[in-house]
Amino acid sequence: MGCIQSFRQCCDRPKNTNVRISLPAVCFVWQIAMIILFGIFIRYDQQSDAHWIEYRKSQNISSDIENDFYFRYPSFQDVHVMIFVGFGFLMTFLKRYSFSAVGFNFLIAAFGLQWALLMQGWFQSLDPMDGKIKIGMESLINADFCVASCLIAYGAVLGKVSPVQLMVMTLFGITLYAVEEFIILNLIHARDAGGSMVIHTFGAYYGLSISWMLYRPNLDRSKRLNGSVYHSDVFAMIGTLFLWMFWPSFNSAITNHGDGQHRAAINTYLALASTVLTTVAISSLSQKAGKLDMVHIQNSTLAGGVAVGTAAEFMLMPYGSLIVGFCCGIISTLGYIYVTPFMEKYLKIQDTCGIHNLHAMPGVIGGIVGAITAAAASEGVYGKEGLINTFDFKGDWKDMVPTRQGGHQAAGLCVALCFGVGGGIIVGCILRLPIWGDAPDDNCFDDDLYWELPEDEESIPPILEYNNHMQNRDATESDFSMEQSQN
Amino acid sequence: MGCIQSFRQCCDRPKNTNVRISLPAVCFVWQIAMIILFGIFIRYDQQSDAHWIEYRKSQNISSDIENDFYFRYPSFQDVHVMIFVGFGFLMTFLKRYSFSAVGFNFLIAAFGLQWALLMQGWFQSLDPMDGKIKIGMESLINADFCVASCLIAYGAVLGKVSPVQLMVMTLFGITLYAVEEFIILNLIHARDAGGSMVIHTFGAYYGLSISWMLYRPNLDRSKRLNGSVYHSDVFAMIGTLFLWMFWPSFNSAITNHGDGQHRAAINTYLALASTVLTTVAISSLSQKAGKLDMVHIQNSTLAGGVAVGTAAEFMLMPYGSLIVGFCCGIISTLGYIYVTPFMEKYLKIQDTCGIHNLHAMPGVIGGIVGAITAAAASEGVYGKEGLINTFDFKGDWKDMVPTRQGGHQAAGLCVALCFGVGGGIIVGCILRLPIWGDAPDDNCFDDDLYWELPEDEESIPPILEYNNHMQNRDATESDFSMEQSQN
Amino acid sequence: MGCIQSFRQCCDRPKNTNVRISLPAVCFVWQIAMIILFGIFIRYDQQSDAHWIEYRKSQNISSDIENDFYFRYPSFQDVHVMIFVGFGFLMTFLKRYSFSAVGFNFLIAAFGLQWALLMQGWFQSLDPMDGKIKIGMESLINADFCVASCLIAYGAVLGKVSPVQLMVMTLFGITLYAVEEFIILNLIHARDAGGSMVIHTFGAYYGLSISWMLYRPNLDRSKRLNGSVYHSDVFAMIGTLFLWMFWPSFNSAITNHGDGQHRAAINTYLALASTVLTTVAISSLSQKAGKLDMVHIQNSTLAGGVAVGTAAEFMLMPYGSLIVGFCCGIISTLGYIYVTPFMEKYLKIQDTCGIHNLHAMPGVIGGIVGAITAAAASEGVYGKEGLINTFDFKGDWKDMVPTRQGGHQAAGLCVALCFGVGGGIIVGCILRLPIWGDAPDDNCFDDDLYWELPEDEESIPPILEYNNHMQNRDATESDFSMEQSQN
Repeated sequence: MGCIQSFRQCCDRPKNTNVRISLPAVCFVWQIAMIILFGIFIRYDQQSDAHWIEYRKSQNISSDIENDFYFRYPSFQDVHVMIFVGFGFLMTFLKRYSFSAVGFNFLIAAFGLQWALLMQGWFQSLDPMDGKIKIGMESLINADFCVASCLIAYGAVLGKVSPVQLMVMTLFGITLYAVEEFIILNLIHARDAGGSMVIHTFGAYYGLSISWMLYRPNLDRSKRLNGSVYHSDVFAMIGTLFLWMFWPSFNSAITNHGDGQHRAAINTYLALASTVLTTVAISSLSQKAGKLDMVHIQNSTLAGGVAVGTAAEFMLMPYGSLIVGFCCGIISTLGYIYVTPFMEKYLKIQDTCGIHNLHAMPGVIGGIVGAITAAAASEGVYGKEGLINTFDFKGDWKDMVPTRQGGHQAAGLCVALCFGVGGGIIVGCILRLPIWGDAPDDNCFDDDLYWELPEDEESIPPILEYNNHMQNRDATESDFSMEQSQN
Repeated sequence: MGCIQSFRQCCDRPKNTNVRISLPAVCFVWQIAMIILFGIFIRYDQQSDAHWIEYRKSQNISSDIENDFYFRYPSFQDVHVMIFVGFGFLMTFLKRYSFSAVGFNFLIAAFGLQWALLMQGWFQSLDPMDGKIKIGMESLINADFCVASCLIAYGAVLGKVSPVQLMVMTLFGITLYAVEEFIILNLIHARDAGGSMVIHTFGAYYGLSISWMLYRPNLDRSKRLNGSVYHSDVFAMIGTLFLWMFWPSFNSAITNHGDGQHRAAINTYLALASTVLTTVAISSLSQKAGKLDMVHIQNSTLAGGVAVGTAAEFMLMPYGSLIVGFCCGIISTLGYIYVTPFMEKYLKIQDTCGIHNLHAMPGVIGGIVGAITAAAASEGVYGKEGLINTFDFKGDWKDMVPTRQGGHQAAGLCVALCFGVGGGIIVGCILRLPIWGDAPDDNCFDDDLYWELPEDEESIPPILEYNNHMQNRDATESDFSMEQSQN
Repeated sequence: MGCIQSFRQCCDRPKNTNVRISLPAVCFVWQIAMIILFGIFIRYDQQSDAHWIEYRKSQNISSDIENDFYFRYPSFQDVHVMIFVGFGFLMTFLKRYSFSAVGFNFLIAAFGLQWALLMQGWFQSLDPMDGKIKIGMESLINADFCVASCLIAYGAVLGKVSPVQLMVMTLFGITLYAVEEFIILNLIHARDAGGSMVIHTFGAYYGLSISWMLYRPNLDRSKRLNGSVYHSDVFAMIGTLFLWMFWPSFNSAITNHGDGQHRAAINTYLALASTVLTTVAISSLSQKAGKLDMVHIQNSTLAGGVAVGTAAEFMLMPYGSLIVGFCCGIISTLGYIYVTPFMEKYLKIQDTCGIHNLHAMPGVIGGIVGAITAAAASEGVYGKEGLINTFDFKGDWKDMVPTRQGGHQAAGLCVALCFGVGGGIIVGCILRLPIWGDAPDDNCFDDDLYWELPEDEESIPPILEYNNHMQNRDATESDFSMEQSQN
């Protein structure tokens, strides 16, 4: 602990936020690297290659509609919207950080998905015949999932890091994700359709650990900007709603064809509905006069979707989903009220978006719910074939039983936690180096550092006055509006 | 009439808008009730149960792609967007009621869809074997439809009711909906794919009747807030466009597989396109200088989708859809110009969003168009099997003929009207009780009653001045900005 | 050139922006014409007609899921969102032109798609048996595509034309589009799945030529309004993101079932991701202090989707897509920095949204990439059947070879260019007539000309002051707020 503190101090030099060399360099070099690696490794899979028509006939597949594209594409597009509009707009709530919220989210997601295709490909779909990675629709969904974990981590450090730091954070985040995903899904054989463990738990603890390493004792110098205005809160609701509405697609996107996707969508739909009511209840209870807090509505309403992720494809039962959502709405909202201030004050973790309440706690709950549901599975409920199908008790795992599967689920959760915390601390150290162009303490949460900002709305003068004025003197618009306000 | 008036007066006591007890109580109790009822009654259906794989083989279904999920899911997600983003953002047009518009819309929809799954299940899909309700994708779409009727009703009372009242209104609204839907679709055997009658006509008259019961003679005391600002109108256009774009999914979501869904989408697409042109024409004609009114563009452009709802799955023909849209654009826009002010002045019905023009009149037109189109159906146009398939002339109804079907359609419309008006009056009485925490007359349309609001945008001072100021005196931000504006 | 200049001058009379007669007249007359023409010509196709059930059985089609609806509908809805929300919101960036951006986009798209169904139908799907046009889902997608070219053209003249001019521009644009599309796709047999040539190149040069004909030497009199404010830039990001996310659906919407749609989506996804990184790099390099420019992020990030349009369905390979995106991000962003100012100053082309950088240049690149990729196609890469299937070497074209196909692709690009430039000049002449109600030079980019605008946000007074004030004097709200600001 002491050494971490002293490392922190040695890194605290005056800040230079100019990223004119570093940002273009990172973007160019990494993108060129992607092109080269894609050239060496990545090819179309059987379903998206022009040989599909021959493959189809050889396999006696009756119709093009059985191409995996038609099973996955609608869900893929919904997930895609969640990544770019959902996460992007959810973070626009700050009064002067909307450009960075939605813009940097865009940047790191666009980079991350390319790197994810490579990393996940190497670990999971390398073709032993020719050493190539074969990609199809499911790969794109998995890449989007992988990116989601880094966007979650962005929520913890929102407003405090530079775009270059975000790129570095994403590079390592994706790498760590691919490793822990391989361990959890392939080695441990845990099931995690909606990623409560591999996406949310990992991503949230990764972000929180980084935020801990980047702790800013004087962050309150920027507190004038660490809040919302009326319209920025409405923008954030766009993000909330698109996340909320499309979460059933998120949790069902890569589950089994047929009943798997169907059931995952239903469970998620119900869990989310239940969360909304308990979030509203706790939010209203927590304020004098019973007024609601937009922060809770924007975030805690989503906790049910996180928590039902692992178990969404299991026979959780509709009432089970409601119960999970019910609990998570309460816990997540209480988290915003009590845990976030506590963490900032005593644990030195500054969590801008409250991802601990939205992703970390519900993610852990989701892992536990998944373990319990898996352990309780029986042939009576699933049917003989259904059990094998749902838990993939095939091949090497054909002797697995539900109770042991429950243990493996719990082991998976621990792996996700370790990777999140461990990886976050290491990456946080790297990001603390004073070379990344992050903001000084009195200028956090400010788009002005990294964006050319338009002038303020108040500077739209009425046309007549404006033109008269322009004739009298050759003043610039900004001079003009300043003068006007002085009169 | 007299007794209604005196009941109104006896309810008019000073208002207390504190909902700190009532709102959490309602949310918790009702959500717990949902969990219990779901536990007793609701199970997965054949298509979403883990036994699907066995069922599929036993039924000789060749592929998972024939799971109903793949027929319905894309439409379901579009409908879901309409419910939460469409209706929610459509109502954000008021300058200081955007939080409530989108937030309470979220709350009541999340509650409503749970209650709708139960109510519709009891009436329509109770399994006689085990007394359980079996839910699948079509149930979720129907639940969303059911919720839509309550959100339409919300439009009439927007800004004038508390969230607790909205919850009560939704509870009764869903209940009434399930009953009238059962009568119209099952007992009368009317067809109503897009819900012109069961959703729009019922929902609109339900809301208007409630608004009539809650008439506020002194509402003009709040008129400073009963209007839009520039950016709130742009937010509302998000709602308008998502409703407009996804309406083809709404009308085709639960129609027959194959040509039924295909035709319903085409008809709706065309009707909506036609409506836009006549709305613009009438809006421009109605203002001096030919300027357009955003209220018309936001609302009347959608009337064609409502009016084509019932007939969307019939052989309405492309030009028929255009004609329906053409007429509804005119009628709806004229409604905003003439009927809404008339209703407020003479009928004592205050209709904040103008749902009479967007849902009530087009809904009735839709019912009539449906009746005519059904009555005019012939084997020549539909084909023998097509006629049976489209109108479901099977089982008990195998001797039905198109002309009689037309009569049944008209009967269905009357039922929807009666349930809307009757139910609305009764529920309006209940909502008039002075215990629900609604706003006083001079504070309607104000988020401040139920939401913790952020400070105004004007309070973002430039950093240098701010920091100097902070050194000189220990003023709060709000003190500071007030002072500044006085200088 | 001289005659064009003198024609311009003869048209420059004082402007009257009142469209109260012309706009409603155009809307009504054209919509009625649509109804009549639809009545004469347009019917449902085999897949959406009620006879489908009989057709299905006669053709031995095993399931309703093979109706084309299920192959195309999710993509159609995504394209629909791009047309109305994507293009509409992308143009809301101007501080006081958001209503017109999203509203007129709505109007002309709704008209255009009807006219496109007719024009494309006459050229491409007229049934020789009965002289009717048979429409289905693919027709609706094609109509949306056709509309896209006119919305691109709108981008060049944004803020400078009246709604009546836009309607005229759309009428001619759709007509020209249908002709050039028929020549390129049917006569020349070029392939253009995502429309790099037929949509983007044509649309952009059409718009630029019109803008050249409508050159306003004194446009800088409106420069106070030709810029963004903070929140209008965030609104524009909604448009950007929905275009970006759904572009894979755009490029894959009408490609071959199966691998064609699958591959087109993957290629587009990758090209767009790559574009984001190079756009950010160039944008940061171009500004002192390395700050990013929202104009670039909003527009140039989309260039990769345009440029990969033609080749999206070919075996472009994942790394090929990345390379295309890489180059287009650079070229497009440099275009905003150097080419747009150059074009305005020296070529007299005022391009409000910079469509030359977003659509014209990337469109031409897309055509070239398509030609090269087609010429390089081989049986080794595509397989024998795959080659025939992908390039449609069937029927009259069964002797075609890839190298010749490459030449045909290049010829197609030239046709698109000629139609764009030629058509734009002619239509520009027509639009220069002083009868269309366009804005005077000192009032461009102003919603106030065509819209009833709400009062400003500053006029929301606090309730207490307001009510006191109202008791003292009977002032209107606007009086009141003026007074207050004078104190």
